[in-house]
Amino acid sequence: MSRFWSDIVNTLTPYVPGEQPALARPVKLNTNENPYPPSPRVIDAITRELGNNGDSLRKYPDPTARALRETIAQHHGLRAEQVFVGNGSDEVLAHTFQALLKHDTPIRFPDITYSFYPVYAQLYGVAFDAVALNADFGIDVDDYRAPNGGVLLPNPNAPTGRALPLDEISILLAANPDSVVVIDEAYVDFGAESAAILVDEYPNLLVIQTLSKARSLAGMRVGYALGHEALIEALTRVKDSFNSYPLDRLAQVAAIASFEDDDYFRATCAKVIASRERLSAELKALGFDVVPSAANFVFARHPAHDAVALAASLKEKEIFVRHFRLPRIDQHLRITVGTDAECDALVAALRAVL
Amino acid sequence: MSRFWSDIVNTLTPYVPGEQPALARPVKLNTNENPYPPSPRVIDAITRELGNNGDSLRKYPDPTARALRETIAQHHGLRAEQVFVGNGSDEVLAHTFQALLKHDTPIRFPDITYSFYPVYAQLYGVAFDAVALNADFGIDVDDYRAPNGGVLLPNPNAPTGRALPLDEISILLAANPDSVVVIDEAYVDFGAESAAILVDEYPNLLVIQTLSKARSLAGMRVGYALGHEALIEALTRVKDSFNSYPLDRLAQVAAIASFEDDDYFRATCAKVIASRERLSAELKALGFDVVPSAANFVFARHPAHDAVALAASLKEKEIFVRHFRLPRIDQHLRITVGTDAECDALVAALRAVL
Repeated sequence: MSRFWSDIVNTLTPYVPGEQPALARPVKLNTNENPYPPSPRVIDAITRELGNNGDSLRKYPDPTARALRETIAQHHGLRAEQVFVGNGSDEVLAHTFQALLKHDTPIRFPDITYSFYPVYAQLYGVAFDAVALNADFGIDVDDYRAPNGGVLLPNPNAPTGRALPLDEISILLAANPDSVVVIDEAYVDFGAESAAILVDEYPNLLVIQTLSKARSLAGMRVGYALGHEALIEALTRVKDSFNSYPLDRLAQVAAIASFEDDDYFRATCAKVIASRERLSAELKALGFDVVPSAANFVFARHPAHDAVALAASLKEKEIFVRHFRLPRIDQHLRITVGTDAECDALVAALRAVL
Repeated sequence: MSRFWSDIVNTLTPYVPGEQPALARPVKLNTNENPYPPSPRVIDAITRELGNNGDSLRKYPDPTARALRETIAQHHGLRAEQVFVGNGSDEVLAHTFQALLKHDTPIRFPDITYSFYPVYAQLYGVAFDAVALNADFGIDVDDYRAPNGGVLLPNPNAPTGRALPLDEISILLAANPDSVVVIDEAYVDFGAESAAILVDEYPNLLVIQTLSKARSLAGMRVGYALGHEALIEALTRVKDSFNSYPLDRLAQVAAIASFEDDDYFRATCAKVIASRERLSAELKALGFDVVPSAANFVFARHPAHDAVALAASLKEKEIFVRHFRLPRIDQHLRITVGTDAECDALVAALRAVL
């Protein structure tokens, strides 16, 4: 605390990201990173941009990221005016709270969900109702009918990994014609259905995606939103009042190159999905309850072993998983799907501990 | 306008950055970019980070940018706890408005200054008094005595280029013990005195710098703030409630490498300063009134020629300078100092036009 702080600073409880251990070779299954590197085309594109002694780096990037937005639009069968890009989907979400979710009525999101949502709400003074997931961590869309100031759902949900079918999302959109419905699809490519194909149909839909997970570019910070032009314009107005150039030159070319290598993208996702199914089966064999996952992580609890103690035992073996000290899920672990070798190391360690 | 927009979106008049012309070889003197590429060490560092098939890019960057903050701290003789880094100094400024400048009393900044300041004020609902510069565009620090909610000055000022001596800044700091005084030093390395050496003395001082100008890294988006730990903590709390990872992996290693090549940095600044003095003399010889500049641009008007017409004539020759349609300065042009060859092209074009 300091007399120099604005009032809002005192009220904040900032988000705490997963640990980045300073170890040579940790088995890092705590931040849902992809175990495989990005497409080789990404490295080629960055290397090309560094040509001529890196002369381009002295110049500002395109503040509108036009070429990247066109690439993303094409990937989803949309127009560039329906695409907003930001410094990771976290920045996109932050602008969304300020631009589209701050109204007189509270917004709604699940009680168990991405733990950054209540942090944004606090930063921008957005009132919210946390709606309880049902007993098996499913979302009932009937709980999200108007009146509300907006609806925000990850699909698949995090940290549960459960997916919501597209027809349920359509029901949700139709039930909320006067609210923005944000579908946060950070993990969608690992097995859920994207709502991107509904953008032309519903002017109240905003779909948010990231290149950090399925595209292996967490280190480059690129996320985006898809929606009706009016929603994209709101985000752009806030962004242009905040920071003209949130995506540097290398991030823009890296992201474009990633979309140009669809085969690599599909193959990587397929490998992660196969490893997830294998890991889920092995965890069940060890006695874990495993929530059905459509993401690149599994959410599991062991009926006979305390989650905090399990995570601590794993950490001693330099295996990192994520535990949330939150109601209803404090006996669960969120385990990122690594390579099969990493998953094997985890399962072996758990077998020793249990 | 849309019924989905938050109220704030309707009130915004976003900042408009300088044009990025899509021409093969424009003479681009409109966005104060450095005419020289970054240090070769920057390219080496990025290339190293891309090793092992770019495997590191799949992982999140260090959210605290610890290594970069330590490098910056060492450069300025400070501790890492006195350093905040962000996605360009524009993002650092945005967080500063929200974290440190939003109080009951209006803040003060000059009437002629970086035109993003009133945009931030609008975005965060910060009231401000724009204080008139004196007739020769100088700042009188007596105009910035408390009571106020904060003081914000670029040094050198933009777009005038005029510098304020360090003893005047000390007077300002002493006169405002209960307000944060932000010195925005985007252009300081081209000839002004940095207030960084006053950070340990004044707990109300926040110095903001960027790697976009003197360090030729506009394309990589890195800026930072120096100040008392309590001020840095406020910025960190806001940042961690907004976006955990605003600096990607390549931006972090690029910035560190830039600070490790001090010889290159000094040599580049010296070249730009020499070209500025040469350009200023030639503009005067053409009849321009030129404001004395301590930056990498000059601010000039011709008593017999309309500024808008001059800028348009230059643009026809693919030479881009910046004109601001603002009171008191609508007959001035802001001209970035390019290479001597670029400055020569500008002078030759002006000679033809005049």
